[in-house]
Amino acid sequence: MTAPTRKDFSSDNVTGVAPEILEALAAANPGTVHSYGADPITERLRARADELFERPVTIVPVATGTAANAIALSALARPWQAVYCPASAHVNTDECGAPEFFSGGAKLMGLPTTDGRLAPGQVTEAVAFARSMGVHHVEPAAVTISQATEWGTVYDLDWLRRLGDEAHGLGLRLHVDGARFANTIARLGCSLADATWRAGVDALSFGATKNGALAAEAIVVFDPALATELEYRRKRSGHLWSKHRFLSAQLLAYFEGDLWLRHGQRANAMADRLAAGLASIEGAACLLPVDANELFIRLPAGVIQGLRGEGFEFYDWPAPSGTDGPVVRLVTSWNMAEADIDAFVESARRAARNS
Amino acid sequence: MTAPTRKDFSSDNVTGVAPEILEALAAANPGTVHSYGADPITERLRARADELFERPVTIVPVATGTAANAIALSALARPWQAVYCPASAHVNTDECGAPEFFSGGAKLMGLPTTDGRLAPGQVTEAVAFARSMGVHHVEPAAVTISQATEWGTVYDLDWLRRLGDEAHGLGLRLHVDGARFANTIARLGCSLADATWRAGVDALSFGATKNGALAAEAIVVFDPALATELEYRRKRSGHLWSKHRFLSAQLLAYFEGDLWLRHGQRANAMADRLAAGLASIEGAACLLPVDANELFIRLPAGVIQGLRGEGFEFYDWPAPSGTDGPVVRLVTSWNMAEADIDAFVESARRAARNS
Amino acid sequence: MTAPTRKDFSSDNVTGVAPEILEALAAANPGTVHSYGADPITERLRARADELFERPVTIVPVATGTAANAIALSALARPWQAVYCPASAHVNTDECGAPEFFSGGAKLMGLPTTDGRLAPGQVTEAVAFARSMGVHHVEPAAVTISQATEWGTVYDLDWLRRLGDEAHGLGLRLHVDGARFANTIARLGCSLADATWRAGVDALSFGATKNGALAAEAIVVFDPALATELEYRRKRSGHLWSKHRFLSAQLLAYFEGDLWLRHGQRANAMADRLAAGLASIEGAACLLPVDANELFIRLPAGVIQGLRGEGFEFYDWPAPSGTDGPVVRLVTSWNMAEADIDAFVESARRAARNS
Amino acid sequence: MTAPTRKDFSSDNVTGVAPEILEALAAANPGTVHSYGADPITERLRARADELFERPVTIVPVATGTAANAIALSALARPWQAVYCPASAHVNTDECGAPEFFSGGAKLMGLPTTDGRLAPGQVTEAVAFARSMGVHHVEPAAVTISQATEWGTVYDLDWLRRLGDEAHGLGLRLHVDGARFANTIARLGCSLADATWRAGVDALSFGATKNGALAAEAIVVFDPALATELEYRRKRSGHLWSKHRFLSAQLLAYFEGDLWLRHGQRANAMADRLAAGLASIEGAACLLPVDANELFIRLPAGVIQGLRGEGFEFYDWPAPSGTDGPVVRLVTSWNMAEADIDAFVESARRAARNS
Repeated sequence: MTAPTRKDFSSDNVTGVAPEILEALAAANPGTVHSYGADPITERLRARADELFERPVTIVPVATGTAANAIALSALARPWQAVYCPASAHVNTDECGAPEFFSGGAKLMGLPTTDGRLAPGQVTEAVAFARSMGVHHVEPAAVTISQATEWGTVYDLDWLRRLGDEAHGLGLRLHVDGARFANTIARLGCSLADATWRAGVDALSFGATKNGALAAEAIVVFDPALATELEYRRKRSGHLWSKHRFLSAQLLAYFEGDLWLRHGQRANAMADRLAAGLASIEGAACLLPVDANELFIRLPAGVIQGLRGEGFEFYDWPAPSGTDGPVVRLVTSWNMAEADIDAFVESARRAARNS
Repeated sequence: MTAPTRKDFSSDNVTGVAPEILEALAAANPGTVHSYGADPITERLRARADELFERPVTIVPVATGTAANAIALSALARPWQAVYCPASAHVNTDECGAPEFFSGGAKLMGLPTTDGRLAPGQVTEAVAFARSMGVHHVEPAAVTISQATEWGTVYDLDWLRRLGDEAHGLGLRLHVDGARFANTIARLGCSLADATWRAGVDALSFGATKNGALAAEAIVVFDPALATELEYRRKRSGHLWSKHRFLSAQLLAYFEGDLWLRHGQRANAMADRLAAGLASIEGAACLLPVDANELFIRLPAGVIQGLRGEGFEFYDWPAPSGTDGPVVRLVTSWNMAEADIDAFVESARRAARNS
Repeated sequence: MTAPTRKDFSSDNVTGVAPEILEALAAANPGTVHSYGADPITERLRARADELFERPVTIVPVATGTAANAIALSALARPWQAVYCPASAHVNTDECGAPEFFSGGAKLMGLPTTDGRLAPGQVTEAVAFARSMGVHHVEPAAVTISQATEWGTVYDLDWLRRLGDEAHGLGLRLHVDGARFANTIARLGCSLADATWRAGVDALSFGATKNGALAAEAIVVFDPALATELEYRRKRSGHLWSKHRFLSAQLLAYFEGDLWLRHGQRANAMADRLAAGLASIEGAACLLPVDANELFIRLPAGVIQGLRGEGFEFYDWPAPSGTDGPVVRLVTSWNMAEADIDAFVESARRAARNS
Repeated sequence: MTAPTRKDFSSDNVTGVAPEILEALAAANPGTVHSYGADPITERLRARADELFERPVTIVPVATGTAANAIALSALARPWQAVYCPASAHVNTDECGAPEFFSGGAKLMGLPTTDGRLAPGQVTEAVAFARSMGVHHVEPAAVTISQATEWGTVYDLDWLRRLGDEAHGLGLRLHVDGARFANTIARLGCSLADATWRAGVDALSFGATKNGALAAEAIVVFDPALATELEYRRKRSGHLWSKHRFLSAQLLAYFEGDLWLRHGQRANAMADRLAAGLASIEGAACLLPVDANELFIRLPAGVIQGLRGEGFEFYDWPAPSGTDGPVVRLVTSWNMAEADIDAFVESARRAARNS
C-alpha cells in the first residue's frame, strides 16, 4: 500500500481520517441520543479532558481550527480591545479576519518575529505604547501564540512560562493556537498540564483535524467563568452541532490510548527523517530548527522541479530576506511511513544528480 | 431490532447517520486530496446540484443549519437592513441571534402568524411602514420563510409564488430555511426547481442533518453574483472545512438515488400514520394540518403521562391561546418504522384507557 | 415676536438652542484647553452631575440620543444577549438598528404594550421562556424603557420601582431612555435620584437636545465598573469630541439654575393647555393621558385640514386599532408661549366651525 | 490679547471656534426648521459643496473625524475585506478600532513607511500576496491615506495620482483622511477637485474641527451610488443630528469666503516661521519637511525643559530609530499670530543659551 497519497507534502490537512476515529463515528451511530451535547459520549469526553489536563477544564468541541481560535479569542477580548500576536500568526493572515468577526472588531496587533515566536518583552513594549494613548488606542487584553508556530518552531516551557508571566503581569490573558499541539507536546515531551495552565496558558485551541480527525478541534479553557459565554458564542456562530455525539466521538477516540500523541510523534519523526535525508543534498538548508512536522527548506531549483516532475506536492514559500534561492515548505503527517519519506529523499537526490 | 431509539419523538436530530452516508464517509477517506473544497468529491457535488436544480447554482456546504441560515441571510441583508420573517421563525427564536451576528446587526422583523406561515400582504404592509420612516428605520432587504415551518406547515406552490412575487415587487429577496426541505418536497410532490427559483426563491438552506446526514447542510443560491461573498463569509465564520471532502461526501450520498426524498417521504408517512392512529384517542386533536413530519397535538394529560411512563420522549409545547389542554410536539424521522409508530399509538391507547 | 416657528408642533427637535446654552458656548470659546474632556468645564460638569444625582455618577456626554441609548445598551448587553423593551420603543423602531450595531448584534425583544409602558410581569414571562431555551435563545441581560414613552406617558415612581425590582430579581439591568427626561421629572415632581438609582435604574440617557441644547445628551451610569468601557465605546464609535468643552458647556448650562427642569415644566404646561383647549372641539379626544409634552389626539379630518391650511405642522399618527377617525401627534416645546398654544386652539375651533 | 492660549503647541484641537463659525451658529438659531437635515442651511451646504468640488458630490456632515473616517471606510470595504494604509495612519493607531467597528471587522493592513506616505507599488505587492491566498485572507478592497499624514507630510499631485491609478488598477477604491486637508490644499496650491476626484480619490474626510469649527467634518464621496448607504450608516451610528442645521451652518461658514483655506494658509505659515526660527538653535533639526502645520523636530533636552518651564506645551514624540536625541511635535493653528511663534522661538533661544 504505497498509495499516491503519500506524495503530498503540501499540508497535513490533505490526509483522511484515522481508522480509530472513523470506527468511533460508526460506533457512536446506533440509536437516538439527546442532541446538542446532552449525550453520554460528550459526558465521557468532558471527564477525559479533566484527566488529560489534571484538573477540571471547560472543553468546547467545534469542527474547525478557525472556529476554535476565533471563539476563544472573542471570549478574551472585547470589541475595543487588542490581541497581540506574531505578525505571521495564522489568526492574523490565514483566517480571513475571523478573530475580528467573532470579537466584534477587536484588533490583532501583529508583532515582528524571525521564526514565528514572540520574544519576551515584545508585548510589554507594545502594551506600554497602547496604554500611553488612552482611549484613542485599542485596549490591551490578550496575547495569542501558536504552538507550533507558522514556522514550525516550538516555544520551550521556560520561554512559554516567561510569556505567561509577562501577559499576566500586564493584566492580559494568554491563548495558544494549537492546530499542531500534538506535534508540540511530542517534541517537548511534557504533560498537557505543563504546556498549558501550569505555564500560564488561559485558553487553548487543541487541534485534531490535521492530526487524524475528520473535523474536530477542542477549545479548552481553565477559567470556569468563561464556560457559559463560550457555549453561547458557539451556538450563535453556528458551531454547535445538533448531532454533537459525532464531534465528541472524534475527540474521545483521539484522546483514547494517546492516539493524538502517537500521531504527533509519528509526524515529527517523519519530519526529522526528512530533514536528515535532505541534508545530504547540495544546496539544501533548513531555515529553522525542525521542532514539529514542518520543514522550511531552501532547495536548488532543479531539485524542486525534479520532485514535482515525479508527482511530489508542496508549497513554494516566501523566502525571508537574505535567503539565497527558493524556499519550500514540506509538511509530514500522522500517517506517513518511513518509505514515504525515503521516496521523497531519493527523488530529491535523483533530481540533484540530474540538474 | 426494535431499538429503544425509536421511542424518541422529541426531534429528528436525535437520530444517527444513514448507513449510505456513513459508507460514503468511509469511501471518501483513502488517500490525500486537496483541502478546502478543491477535491473531486466536491466537484461532483457541484455538478449534481446543477442537475437537481435544473440550472447552474452555487452550492456552499456547511455543517449546521444555523450556519446555513445565517450565512445566507448575511449575504442578502446589509447591517442596517431588515429581514422580515414569521415571529415564530427558527432564525428569530432558536439560533441565539446568529443572523444578527453574521449580518453585523441586521434586524429580524418578526411578523405574527397563526401557523408559522406569512400571509401575502404582510410584508408589503411592514415595508410600507419602514419606508415611511426613512433612515430612522432599518431598510427593507429580504424575507425569510421556513419550509416546512416551525409549526410543521408547508406553503403550497401558489402561496410560495405569491410571496416570491411580493418580495421581488418590493425589491426584496426571498430566503427559504429548508431544515426540513426534504419533507416539504415530499409533501408538495414537485421538483426542487419548482419549489425554489421558479417560485422566486433567491437562497435556500437545504437541510440534510435532521434527515440522515452527520452534519451537513447546503446553502444554495441562484444569483452567481453572490458566490464569492458566500465563500469569504464561510471561511471567515470558521465554516470552511479543511477536509472538505467529508462535507461533500455526505451531501453527495444524500442526493444519490434521491435518498433525501425517500427519507422525507418516510418521515412524512410516519407522521401521517401517527396522526391517524392518535385520532382515535378521545380528546386528542391536531392543532394544524400535518404537512411534514411534525404533529402539534392536544393530548389528555393522562395520555401524556402514560406515554412518558413507558419511555416515550417528546416536548411539551406552548399551547396557542384558546387551546384547551396540554399540547405536545411529536416529530417522526427518516428511520422510523411502522412498528415504532404503532407502539406509540398503542401506548397512548393504553394510557387513555387507564386514565 | 410671535414667530412662524411656533406653528410647528411636529416635534421638539425643530427648535433652536436656548439663549443660555448658546451663551455658554460663546463663553467657553476663548483660549486653548486640553482636548477630549481633560478641560475645566468638563470637570465642573462631572461635579455638577454628582450633585444633581446626590451621589457619585459617571457622566459621558455625547451629541445625539441615538448614541446615548446605543452606547449605554451596549455596555449592558453582550452580543449574544437580549434587551427587553416595549415594541414601540424608539430604540426598537426609530434608531435604524443602532443598538444592534453598537452591541454587536444583541437582540431587542419588543413586548406589546397599549400605551408604551411595560407592565410588571411582562419581562418575567419573556425571560422564563428565554431561559427554558438555553443557548438556543439569546440570553436575557437588560430591560430598557422610555421616560416619557413614545406615547407620551410616564411611569410613576411606584411602577418604576416595580420594574427595577423585577429586572434586578431576574439578574437584568435597567436602562431608561430619557430623551424627554426633563418632561418626566417635571411631571413626577421628584428628584433625579428618586427617578433613577433609588428606583433601580442602572443607566440613563438624559436628553438635552430636544429640550434646548444644540446637540448634547448625557449617558449617566451608577455602577463605576462601567466607566472605562463607556469611554472606550464612545471613542470607538466616533462620539468623543476633540473640543469636548463644547459638549460639556451645553450640559453645564442646561443644569445651571435648573434650566432643564424649567424647560420641561414649560413644555408640559403648554401640552396641558393645548389638551384643555382642544377638549372643547367636538370629536376631539386624547387617546392617552398627557403626562409629558405630547398629545396623541383624535381630531376630525376637517379640523386637521384647517389647521394645516393655516400653516400648523404636525404628524399624522397610526391610529391604534379600535380608534375611530384620524389621529395626530402634537408636540409642545420648551420655548412655546401661551399665545402659541392659544393660536393653535383658535385655529382648530375655526376649522371645526367651518367644517 | 496675547492670551495664554497661544502657548499650547500640542495640537490644533486645543483651539476654540473661529468667530465666523460661532456667529453662523447664532445666525442659524432663530425659528423652527425641519430636523435631520431637511433644512435650508443644509440645502445651501450641498449646493456649495458641488461648487467647491466642481461637480455634483455627496456631502455627509458629522461631528468628528473618527466618525467621518470610519463611516467612509465602512462604505468602501465589506466586513471580510482589507483596507491598506500606512502603519502609522491615524485610523490604524488613534481611533480605537473605529474602522473595524463601523465596517464589521474589516482589516486595516498597515504598511511600513518612513514619513507616513505610502510609496507607489506597496499596495500592489500586498494585494498580490492577499490574492494568492484566496478566501483564507481578507479580500483587498480599499486604500486609505492621510493628507497631510501623521508625520505632517503631503503627497504631491503626481504622487497622489499614481496611488489613485494603482488602487483603481487593482480594483480598489481610495479614501483620503483629510483631518488637515485645508493645510494640504494650502501647501499644494491646487483646487479641491485636483486634489480629490481628478486624482482618483473616491472618498474624502474633509476636516474642519481642527481648523476652526466647533465639531464638524464632512464626508465627501463622488460616486452617487454610495449616498444612500452613507445616510443609513450615519443614522445607525448615532451621527445624524436632529438639529442638523447646526452641523451644516458650521461647514457653510467654513467654506464661505474660503475661510477654510485662509485658516490652513495661516497655520502653515506659522509652521514655516517656527521652523525657520528654530533652525538657528544649535542641535535642532526637523526630521521631515514641514508640509503642513506640524513640526517633528529634534531639540536639545535643555531647550525642551526651558520651553516647558516657561509654560509652552507640546508632546514628546517617539524618535525614529537612528535619531539622536529627544524629538517633539509642534503643531501650529489657524489662530496663531506671528508674535506667538516668535515668543516660542525666543523662549527656545533663551533655553539654549542657559543650558
